Amino acid sequence: MKRLGILFVVSGPSGAGKGTVLGKVRGEVEGLSMSISATTREPRTGETDGVDYWFCSKNQFQEMINNKEFLEYIEKFDNFYGTPKAPVEKLLKEGSDVILEIETLGAVNVRTLFPEAVLIFITPQSYDELKRRLDKRGSETDEAKALRLKIALSELSSVGDYDYIAINNDVRDCINTIKAIILAERNKRYRYSNLVEELTTRTNKK
Amino acid sequence: MKRLGILFVVSGPSGAGKGTVLGKVRGEVEGLSMSISATTREPRTGETDGVDYWFCSKNQFQEMINNKEFLEYIEKFDNFYGTPKAPVEKLLKEGSDVILEIETLGAVNVRTLFPEAVLIFITPQSYDELKRRLDKRGSETDEAKALRLKIALSELSSVGDYDYIAINNDVRDCINTIKAIILAERNKRYRYSNLVEELTTRTNKK
Repeated sequence: MKRLGILFVVSGPSGAGKGTVLGKVRGEVEGLSMSISATTREPRTGETDGVDYWFCSKNQFQEMINNKEFLEYIEKFDNFYGTPKAPVEKLLKEGSDVILEIETLGAVNVRTLFPEAVLIFITPQSYDELKRRLDKRGSETDEAKALRLKIALSELSSVGDYDYIAINNDVRDCINTIKAIILAERNKRYRYSNLVEELTTRTNKK
Repeated sequence: MKRLGILFVVSGPSGAGKGTVLGKVRGEVEGLSMSISATTREPRTGETDGVDYWFCSKNQFQEMINNKEFLEYIEKFDNFYGTPKAPVEKLLKEGSDVILEIETLGAVNVRTLFPEAVLIFITPQSYDELKRRLDKRGSETDEAKALRLKIALSELSSVGDYDYIAINNDVRDCINTIKAIILAERNKRYRYSNLVEELTTRTNKK
């Protein structure tokens, strides 16, 4: 009963806690891979090429754009970030489910290419809570805070494009919600075409 | 963020283990009620009116049919079984999710009345496994077994009408699958219209 993998696209505003939640989900769910993004920004201390990101030059990135090798890509703070198509398609064909953590703009593109992708939006429980979390990042200038809030708000405005909302009020609850969504999606009837065929064919033979 | 309850319709062939699984699910999930069926058959030892079934006479049942008080009903082995509409609607309005364990024929009717109902099919992992489980019921005559298998097969042939398939190979896995489906459905974006409105309205105000 081999099936194609399911593509889960996860987005949410900065401050929603996506990284923490998805790190745990990856460790607790079998048969789940995280897509690795390509980026032109410099590696930070502790980051490994091919694990955290595929690090590449702007020329390399531009060539991949020209060759249509990305599922989606964006430019942010003078750098490019993108999802290479080939590794995702390979995983899905092998039957592994894939999580793609990307910004809302990219998510809509992915939906166009993969209509059966499942879109999950992680968010704090309210606008005020989001603002409070962003304000708490004390090390930033007011200007940087304002910019971060503006970007977060623009992310929030896309929530209507998503299939599921996972509220991150309590981290463990949010992890469990994402895990439940993955398990439920794996049990959608149309992903069981072989079993459905067996059950109904045997029936008709009687 | 009060929302309407979700109606979960659960079916599956005799021998799939619906009763055991749903009993556990009810005990482990908050905010979930089981719909109680009305029936004209006699109470068995240990069964309580209003807990296991609403027991009523054939005349009373017929009157409820005439008054269109059922979501669905069927006749089986000379007795009637049906789901009274009013208590289900009351629970859903109060925001409680409701599980309806009914036969496949009734499920299609419920879908017509509640297009947003979520249909779950519990099944053994294969036709052969189902047959093996039904054969094991040693106390029955061959005739009774053949009839039971025929009914089970007719139930199986409806699997294509359902949203989810929960395979009952291991009882605990099956319980966890149903719980995941319930949790995932509760987190569908369109059930969060208030939150979505808040997040996007606040955004647009900026």
